[in-house]
Amino acid sequence: MKKRIVIKLSGRIFGMDNVKILKDYARFLVKISKVCQPVIVAGGGNIARRYINYARSSGADESSLDELGIDISRLNAKLLIYALKHRAYPHPPTTLQEIRNAVDSGVIVVTGGLHPGHSTNGTAALIAEKIQASVFLNATDVDGVYDLDPNKYKGAKMYRRIALKKLRNMLVHKESIAGGYDLMDLLTLKIIERSKIKTRILKADIKTLEKAIKGGPVGTEIIFPKK
Amino acid sequence: MKKRIVIKLSGRIFGMDNVKILKDYARFLVKISKVCQPVIVAGGGNIARRYINYARSSGADESSLDELGIDISRLNAKLLIYALKHRAYPHPPTTLQEIRNAVDSGVIVVTGGLHPGHSTNGTAALIAEKIQASVFLNATDVDGVYDLDPNKYKGAKMYRRIALKKLRNMLVHKESIAGGYDLMDLLTLKIIERSKIKTRILKADIKTLEKAIKGGPVGTEIIFPKK
Amino acid sequence: MKKRIVIKLSGRIFGMDNVKILKDYARFLVKISKVCQPVIVAGGGNIARRYINYARSSGADESSLDELGIDISRLNAKLLIYALKHRAYPHPPTTLQEIRNAVDSGVIVVTGGLHPGHSTNGTAALIAEKIQASVFLNATDVDGVYDLDPNKYKGAKMYRRIALKKLRNMLVHKESIAGGYDLMDLLTLKIIERSKIKTRILKADIKTLEKAIKGGPVGTEIIFPKK
Amino acid sequence: MKKRIVIKLSGRIFGMDNVKILKDYARFLVKISKVCQPVIVAGGGNIARRYINYARSSGADESSLDELGIDISRLNAKLLIYALKHRAYPHPPTTLQEIRNAVDSGVIVVTGGLHPGHSTNGTAALIAEKIQASVFLNATDVDGVYDLDPNKYKGAKMYRRIALKKLRNMLVHKESIAGGYDLMDLLTLKIIERSKIKTRILKADIKTLEKAIKGGPVGTEIIFPKK
Amino acid sequence: MKKRIVIKLSGRIFGMDNVKILKDYARFLVKISKVCQPVIVAGGGNIARRYINYARSSGADESSLDELGIDISRLNAKLLIYALKHRAYPHPPTTLQEIRNAVDSGVIVVTGGLHPGHSTNGTAALIAEKIQASVFLNATDVDGVYDLDPNKYKGAKMYRRIALKKLRNMLVHKESIAGGYDLMDLLTLKIIERSKIKTRILKADIKTLEKAIKGGPVGTEIIFPKK
Amino acid sequence: MKKRIVIKLSGRIFGMDNVKILKDYARFLVKISKVCQPVIVAGGGNIARRYINYARSSGADESSLDELGIDISRLNAKLLIYALKHRAYPHPPTTLQEIRNAVDSGVIVVTGGLHPGHSTNGTAALIAEKIQASVFLNATDVDGVYDLDPNKYKGAKMYRRIALKKLRNMLVHKESIAGGYDLMDLLTLKIIERSKIKTRILKADIKTLEKAIKGGPVGTEIIFPKK
Repeated sequence: MKKRIVIKLSGRIFGMDNVKILKDYARFLVKISKVCQPVIVAGGGNIARRYINYARSSGADESSLDELGIDISRLNAKLLIYALKHRAYPHPPTTLQEIRNAVDSGVIVVTGGLHPGHSTNGTAALIAEKIQASVFLNATDVDGVYDLDPNKYKGAKMYRRIALKKLRNMLVHKESIAGGYDLMDLLTLKIIERSKIKTRILKADIKTLEKAIKGGPVGTEIIFPKK
Repeated sequence: MKKRIVIKLSGRIFGMDNVKILKDYARFLVKISKVCQPVIVAGGGNIARRYINYARSSGADESSLDELGIDISRLNAKLLIYALKHRAYPHPPTTLQEIRNAVDSGVIVVTGGLHPGHSTNGTAALIAEKIQASVFLNATDVDGVYDLDPNKYKGAKMYRRIALKKLRNMLVHKESIAGGYDLMDLLTLKIIERSKIKTRILKADIKTLEKAIKGGPVGTEIIFPKK
Repeated sequence: MKKRIVIKLSGRIFGMDNVKILKDYARFLVKISKVCQPVIVAGGGNIARRYINYARSSGADESSLDELGIDISRLNAKLLIYALKHRAYPHPPTTLQEIRNAVDSGVIVVTGGLHPGHSTNGTAALIAEKIQASVFLNATDVDGVYDLDPNKYKGAKMYRRIALKKLRNMLVHKESIAGGYDLMDLLTLKIIERSKIKTRILKADIKTLEKAIKGGPVGTEIIFPKK
Repeated sequence: MKKRIVIKLSGRIFGMDNVKILKDYARFLVKISKVCQPVIVAGGGNIARRYINYARSSGADESSLDELGIDISRLNAKLLIYALKHRAYPHPPTTLQEIRNAVDSGVIVVTGGLHPGHSTNGTAALIAEKIQASVFLNATDVDGVYDLDPNKYKGAKMYRRIALKKLRNMLVHKESIAGGYDLMDLLTLKIIERSKIKTRILKADIKTLEKAIKGGPVGTEIIFPKK
Repeated sequence: MKKRIVIKLSGRIFGMDNVKILKDYARFLVKISKVCQPVIVAGGGNIARRYINYARSSGADESSLDELGIDISRLNAKLLIYALKHRAYPHPPTTLQEIRNAVDSGVIVVTGGLHPGHSTNGTAALIAEKIQASVFLNATDVDGVYDLDPNKYKGAKMYRRIALKKLRNMLVHKESIAGGYDLMDLLTLKIIERSKIKTRILKADIKTLEKAIKGGPVGTEIIFPKK
Repeated sequence: MKKRIVIKLSGRIFGMDNVKILKDYARFLVKISKVCQPVIVAGGGNIARRYINYARSSGADESSLDELGIDISRLNAKLLIYALKHRAYPHPPTTLQEIRNAVDSGVIVVTGGLHPGHSTNGTAALIAEKIQASVFLNATDVDGVYDLDPNKYKGAKMYRRIALKKLRNMLVHKESIAGGYDLMDLLTLKIIERSKIKTRILKADIKTLEKAIKGGPVGTEIIFPKK
């Protein structure tokens, strides 16, 4: 059995301004699928945010907004599935069980969010847990976790490794997370912690992802305390 | 029992550039719901077209493209549902039977497409048939059916009434349909014909719709041969 | 991968007066499944018509009548599945996606109608499109498309090839379709046209079907304009 | 809350040779629905038997045959639903829970079989149990339970009341059940016994049913031992 | 194709006081899966009885009690699935069709009850029928069928073979079934009879089951009359 | 419209050693349902823990363990539904949407967990958000939130009000939460925070709950910063 890798792909990738990018990702996934089995979790991105803002202005409740984000992330997942043609499971699964069954069948699986109350990051962590992935790559809009916001502070330094507890402390005091809100959240960390999932936060960029899959030290690795 | 009215709403309404428009439609629907029970079928609009074009360029098959359009039309339906708050059935139904049950419960129902191979117009006609609607208003981007393309020909004349057979002949020779592709299609006409559904093609505009509901002679009415 | 063939089988085959006929079809399908993968769409036939007439006399709406036809076509599909024993997908799929998944698994697939508003012909065309079938064989009660009703006019001539546009014109003026109502309908033609599906209308008869699968010029072929 | 009555209607009623009979039943059910809430369980009848025999000759397994019978009984239920128009729950429920919910909503409910391994009689008894029906009327092709087959023995006597244990003994030695195989089965008796359901076996005939609903002593009543 | 064996496992096995027992069963099932394909039906056992009694004291109806038993039997099935790890179908199927599909895929299948009104014994018999199992082993808390209750009568004798009709007679007069209520019931016998399923009632014990699979004469075999 | 109250009920209540307790709760809920609409979320309790430990010892993954807990919490919910008889929605809903629909119908709703990765506390908070509950009562095994573990420190003091941020800090350093692990978790707090849900942690005890519903200052209230 090939080792399984969960990749959360930032919604920005699915922005539709660049029709070539998903084809590049498709080619890349087919290539790496010779050495591992990738499971992709698509984010919602810009269009999700537009729908959510529109609905929020009408007074929709938070879990309905979550559902809109899930809907769009599944549409994004479909776009990548079409680009992958016969190499992909033919639709985005909608339950953990369906994902596991799809993964067991050996094909590349692309999915979106699953349930209100879970970010796509959290969903990706649950999937990594369910299919016993050997690594969870959280491909975001930033290079990794910084001590200070790199957009504001010239001397901001990226961590190559960060203890889970330290990252959690940064999240609890949200304003101090360098690089943005969606990088990681508390539920995601809880799941990573309970199942000791090997996790790396890195730039959503094909070359960077390729290095990470080969075990290279890109982005920021989350580390656990030794018992 | 209030008379039931099916309104197909052009996807353009859900364009998200104008956050006020759906609130206006919500207010309008609540107002008319005192005298009739409206069922709204949302079109896919611009975002549907973007997703479909993107997927087509990846080689997705036609029924998958239909599904993308359905997905987006349901998201659009949700936006109107949120604007309607407690006055609407809480989600877009996904089968004719669910639509009928929802309509029987008396609330305003907003839905999108249902199945691949059916346009949202055709879906709206099937719904009108299923719930025995007293009228089907096809609210589009044009004022009605013209003899010539009004954008090209200054003297183009709008029909106030058109025989179903004549409209069908225009559709068969598609290039001659003044005003564009999506105004009506052959399957939709077939359903309108088999159940003799009273149908009007008109501008997607609140005032125009209001006139039509009051029985005013706006847009183009489709007429049937006398037996 | 074997090439895929969609066969719409006239409901008459499932008439139940002749218990041997489905066994003959089963043997035939197993035989041809060595060189291609057949997908069968069963029609409703006589029993469907009896149920539909009964329900219509009670005032049931048209889409409920469509559903009755779908129900019976699925029962017919089951009869052929039982005759095929372990060679067939074990039940009639109910969505395009399930059909595609079943086809991908390599077995013979037998299905009935799918959704109200679609004839079984139209459903067969949608399936041919979805699974990228190499040919769609519409096996009916007549030999092909005639210029005049062969039951009435001695000199009626069967077309060996007919342009899609010409066939559509005949359908629009229904009374002129030689051989009967159900041979082909507008929605089916629309799907055949949009995906350029290679289509042949022929007699529902094992020998005729076998010739068609081998590429022989039986029945009437639908041809498309060259661009 | 009106008292609830479960009526198992022999499949013979749905024979389709007599288009008037279901309209008569519909009128009757609407009439009695003023004093009680009827739940109808449709049998499969002659068409079910034809499909089952056909499938059995192809070697289908017994539970698949049960499913065919269930499918046809649901089609029969639909015919009665259409005849009842807006007075009936709009489709045949497919689970006990859905039946209970439908009954709670106050309308007339018409259903068919539910699961392989259960006769429609057994299903009717399970429904009577689930909705706490005040009586279960098993409307069959015979007048009631006889001591000898009335078709063969001139002096055959119908029981007006029969102890459940005695009926069970007759069933165990099947050949001795006067009037036919399908009148009642062991599983049905077990359910009647465990929930002490008031049960009457009688002729499927509107006048007879009306008398029974008014409490008249028609057909054969099943009686339980006093504790 | 390996021969298929259905084993109904007494709920007592899943008692949770002995954490080792399911691991032993898992090892045993993996071992025998080299020579046959086992399908396991888990009983509800003690915890099912506690939930059922509690609910009965609140006045729940009998089919709701059946459902509680089904729920617990599925939880028990899951425990065995986890012990079997990747050798088992990943969850308890919930319909006969899903069971057949799962069995066709070749893995070990573990399930619980399916529908109210069916005991887990009856469900196991329906499954044996559906998948054309070569034998149905009903693994219970007793060694087999006795002429007298072995707990009360010293000289009670176990049948090595018993005619189905005789067993049915014993069941009809329930008090005379030596060894307890749940050993076999009338519906189960009906299914065994209609499909002539080779059935053995034996002790739920790994060594005993192993002997039975090898064809050894353990427990009590049910025999049918020669035609 | 009555105001809606979400009560998370500790799984301990469903322990089955005390058959009277659920009847007392049912009576209490019927009584308060005259002034508000209660939605109950049942915990898993002791039996959930036993199943989870058993499955963990077989190597089941964490989300499968979550599912076992959800299964048991639904069984517990059913027991309370039976005790409530016709006053309750007839089964535990399984999605947020079904819960909202059930609540809209006006009956008492009892549910269990919904999705892996969410505690029953988190689920209760999501429900409170979805149905716009006026208060969320988290009924636990302790009186409220303490500064020190009251079982260990004589002088431990219960907070009558605690700032959400302070509680979150206590949770991040789990060992310092007086009274135990399951009282509240980070995801639950995130939901409470994003929708500003009025929340109280209190003893699972009928008299205490009654006081809280009347607005009395029992247990610990979570307070938000003023903007």
